[in-house]
Amino acid sequence: MIDPSRHVNIGSLIFDGIDQIDLTGPFEVLARIPNSTYRLYGKTDGMIRDLKGLRISPDAAIAEAPQLDVLHIPGGFGQEALMDDEEVLGWIRRQAEGAQSIFSVCTGALVLGAAGLLKGRRATTHWASFHLLPYFGAIPVDERVVVDGNWVFAAGVTAGIDGALRLAAELRGDAAAQGIQLHMVYAPEPPFDAGTPASAPPEVFAAMRESVRAVTTQREATARRVAERLGITAAVSP
Amino acid sequence: MIDPSRHVNIGSLIFDGIDQIDLTGPFEVLARIPNSTYRLYGKTDGMIRDLKGLRISPDAAIAEAPQLDVLHIPGGFGQEALMDDEEVLGWIRRQAEGAQSIFSVCTGALVLGAAGLLKGRRATTHWASFHLLPYFGAIPVDERVVVDGNWVFAAGVTAGIDGALRLAAELRGDAAAQGIQLHMVYAPEPPFDAGTPASAPPEVFAAMRESVRAVTTQREATARRVAERLGITAAVSP
Repeated sequence: MIDPSRHVNIGSLIFDGIDQIDLTGPFEVLARIPNSTYRLYGKTDGMIRDLKGLRISPDAAIAEAPQLDVLHIPGGFGQEALMDDEEVLGWIRRQAEGAQSIFSVCTGALVLGAAGLLKGRRATTHWASFHLLPYFGAIPVDERVVVDGNWVFAAGVTAGIDGALRLAAELRGDAAAQGIQLHMVYAPEPPFDAGTPASAPPEVFAAMRESVRAVTTQREATARRVAERLGITAAVSP
Repeated sequence: MIDPSRHVNIGSLIFDGIDQIDLTGPFEVLARIPNSTYRLYGKTDGMIRDLKGLRISPDAAIAEAPQLDVLHIPGGFGQEALMDDEEVLGWIRRQAEGAQSIFSVCTGALVLGAAGLLKGRRATTHWASFHLLPYFGAIPVDERVVVDGNWVFAAGVTAGIDGALRLAAELRGDAAAQGIQLHMVYAPEPPFDAGTPASAPPEVFAAMRESVRAVTTQREATARRVAERLGITAAVSP
């Protein structure tokens, strides 16, 4: 917990092809952290589009961001384009040097990997990309939310809500996080037990894995290229 | 379940002062319903701002919307302004006549009430507004998701995710909804048991109730005014 009297700057990176709930789930929490400023940063100040067309405006471009205390990196297939974008990766590296916390959701973790920031870290990501974490030197931990020091990794998509509440508690204490959880009426009742590969009906899982196969293949190729660039060879079984 | 070969038009109403996750939680589901078109409609085609400043663009103005098969009405304090807005209320009434399903989240239910559409319906809304449902002639049901015929009511905020998955199952069958749930990795692990008035620590609940007192008072005044307009006097204890 940070000194509650110290104001914190929180920022989310947004980009085309984000999976919007990787952003908007945590937004509901991060925008309500006591004594904080929360802003969305794009590579430019132009509107972005999520995977399914939701159009969201950033508050500013990354070049205008102050040093952030908390940097949130959502995922979604648009993360691929960021993984070779030295302007964005350099910005993330510089922010990470001065930040208190880094918080990734879903395949946002792969972007941190491409920035070279996962070496030796316990981390998680979406189930379809989980096997890629060693390419970035990370130690894969198969949990919904992984806390590694001041870094928080949420696995797939809606795990960002759980991760953001964990982060809120780390930053401002349990009561603050519980107040936000009550505001959100976050007492979930999923209508099915189908949210993970292990719990989903096998035919539902098979269809979903098939539908992301092309995307996963591309992510694997990118991960291999990044591993080479970072000089990571251990623990990678191609 | 609707004939899967029949294409469905799904729309969400968006407005200034929305609570963004009332929209974006369901968005993650509604944008993935098989054989459907999903669009966001604003009163105009201009960008809207959520309670905490998230800026989202509608796809079109309500005047341009086709007859929708599913109409989704999110909540948030901006709902107050809609409750006397005959242009929007009239649009909702006309849509409701031809729609297959109406789906409200949080205080979106109050907007349906103001449109005169809750008379005799089993419904729910956010805990802080739950006691207002009788003003609109609704039968309050204290459950997270209430299904009344083809209408679906989700209680507070994140209940919209559960409600949207229920709706997806009603529209396209369980396997379709389970596939979406797996995509979303919706196997929640809230870090605290604090998402309802009954489960939150008493001091957290007291603080939250206090923080929404002014808003609740205003909503009560509006509900009384609407009840008068609708000629509803039964079951209201002021």
